[in-house]
Amino acid sequence: MPPSLGEFELIARLAESVERARRSDPAGSGAEVFVGTGDDAAVTVPRGATATSVDALVEGVHFRRQSSSPGSVGRKAIAVALSDLAAMGAEPGEAYVQLGLPEDLDDSYFLELGGALAAAAADHGVAVVGGDVTRAPVLVVALTVVGHAGSAEDLVLRSGARPGDALAVTGELGGAAAGLLLLDRPELADGIPEEMATELRRRHTEPEPRLRAGVALAAAGATAMIDLSDGLGGDAGHLAAASAVRVVVELDRLPVQPGVAEVAAAAGLDAQELAAARGEDYELLVALPADALAAAGDAVAEVGVALTEVGGVEEGGGVAMRGLDGTEHEPRGFDQLRP
Amino acid sequence: MPPSLGEFELIARLAESVERARRSDPAGSGAEVFVGTGDDAAVTVPRGATATSVDALVEGVHFRRQSSSPGSVGRKAIAVALSDLAAMGAEPGEAYVQLGLPEDLDDSYFLELGGALAAAAADHGVAVVGGDVTRAPVLVVALTVVGHAGSAEDLVLRSGARPGDALAVTGELGGAAAGLLLLDRPELADGIPEEMATELRRRHTEPEPRLRAGVALAAAGATAMIDLSDGLGGDAGHLAAASAVRVVVELDRLPVQPGVAEVAAAAGLDAQELAAARGEDYELLVALPADALAAAGDAVAEVGVALTEVGGVEEGGGVAMRGLDGTEHEPRGFDQLRP
Repeated sequence: MPPSLGEFELIARLAESVERARRSDPAGSGAEVFVGTGDDAAVTVPRGATATSVDALVEGVHFRRQSSSPGSVGRKAIAVALSDLAAMGAEPGEAYVQLGLPEDLDDSYFLELGGALAAAAADHGVAVVGGDVTRAPVLVVALTVVGHAGSAEDLVLRSGARPGDALAVTGELGGAAAGLLLLDRPELADGIPEEMATELRRRHTEPEPRLRAGVALAAAGATAMIDLSDGLGGDAGHLAAASAVRVVVELDRLPVQPGVAEVAAAAGLDAQELAAARGEDYELLVALPADALAAAGDAVAEVGVALTEVGGVEEGGGVAMRGLDGTEHEPRGFDQLRP
Repeated sequence: MPPSLGEFELIARLAESVERARRSDPAGSGAEVFVGTGDDAAVTVPRGATATSVDALVEGVHFRRQSSSPGSVGRKAIAVALSDLAAMGAEPGEAYVQLGLPEDLDDSYFLELGGALAAAAADHGVAVVGGDVTRAPVLVVALTVVGHAGSAEDLVLRSGARPGDALAVTGELGGAAAGLLLLDRPELADGIPEEMATELRRRHTEPEPRLRAGVALAAAGATAMIDLSDGLGGDAGHLAAASAVRVVVELDRLPVQPGVAEVAAAAGLDAQELAAARGEDYELLVALPADALAAAGDAVAEVGVALTEVGGVEEGGGVAMRGLDGTEHEPRGFDQLRP
């Protein structure tokens, strides 16, 4: 356990900040929570179906402690986990936090991370109802998140896309990749307004899970949905494989975030490549009947998010990336393209 | 990601072994599982209340890869996690696995660990319905387990013990601590039969979650329950604090596992100390009305586990450890006593 406080004291302090966050937004949770932190297990009574997802951030793999504030690590951890619930169209419910703490971690870092995570969870209507703390060689933040729906049929899987469906994405793409480039190579920001650069970096360090957009898309008749964590090419491939269809992406229709083109040019890269092949934008890729597209766009606009048609679903398999000139490109995942 | 297989290939292989384990024991799950591994989240429809707990094993902290087979790491990870559900009296349901894999880990180690974990889960009636794989500097196995009950009131918290209740433990104590001593100092096994030494080591490396005993104790009227992970002294303290009572443990009544006395003597330690102050036996400590004790013992015996009265619950606070001579000892947790 970390230096000055014992494990139980740390857990008690974390539980306090979790309680504070919960009281400040008592809306939360799609389940009735009977027992939260402090017993062998949390006790809830879900109403209807649950969607459950696990996700972890590991120091040195997903973030560097030197360049990430404890608050941003906590907020990113919960955001990335909740993005999977957004992709199901689930109402956010409860979260469980598992922390691996290195010996050299200050108590204050731990408490700030836990407090920021709980506050961000509360902002998204999520109650942190359980946790576990152990020692680890590097900082590990593992999350289990539970979302809710009236019935299993109300949730949107990856596997329901049908030939003829339209394909759309929420928000804007490429920002997280451009932000990561700016964090790694600050000189790339020279040609662009500071506000724009800040926004791009924020897309990488503090992504926004599209929870309300996901619920709106589910209600609007989405047939299949996935969040863009690995990159549009790779994630479209998962959706195509699960649905046994061919997914066609028209590269010139991608909603590229302002500033991405400038950063890409400064780095000698292609803006469409950042938008289509890099990951971590945490936007939603959605298939839906073509005649449902307009109403879905209106519903998503009501929660402040844009919806852009970027292609369609065909018979067949795999992913085709179609350029403005009609040529097809191989879909590329982040594995092949990361520097 | 580990050397030869990519992340998605590894996950697919793990999902296969999970499917195999599930098919071999289709009983499983207290919830209807609509979607398991392979989508953004697992979809279940729980019937009644759920108990959810998170737990992690970290290489170098909880096990050493050199001295632990992948199978025993997988089995211990699920057992330790399920022990928390046992302490709630919950019917085991679903599990979610998060693996952090170091670069130098063989694919075969990963697959053997995952396969053993899924098989052990199935043996306990648990379905592995979700997972996540990431890179990490050391091997991390984090589990989220979900148990079920008809209603929240059917689950046993730490907080319900009342003055006048009897206090009892399942099974035998001290075995895990003695087993750890034998693993660290093999020469301590010189004076005892090899079978006995093997059994003690197994208590440490492959604990058994008392799931069926927990359900039986809940049905028999348990007022408070906790699993012995930190040691009887420490865990009795958690129960006492949560229930706002004084817990009295009579040291001479502790059911000490055969061989523990011999190992303790060889190590210059006290057998009662191993049974009362060391952790990881994963037996259940339970408070229940004194007049329910006999029937509870019968119910637990039916699932092959002994129940031993070891003390009682009084007005007040804290834990008293009472020796045969009537003297009281300070309760000691593992923090103070671990070598």
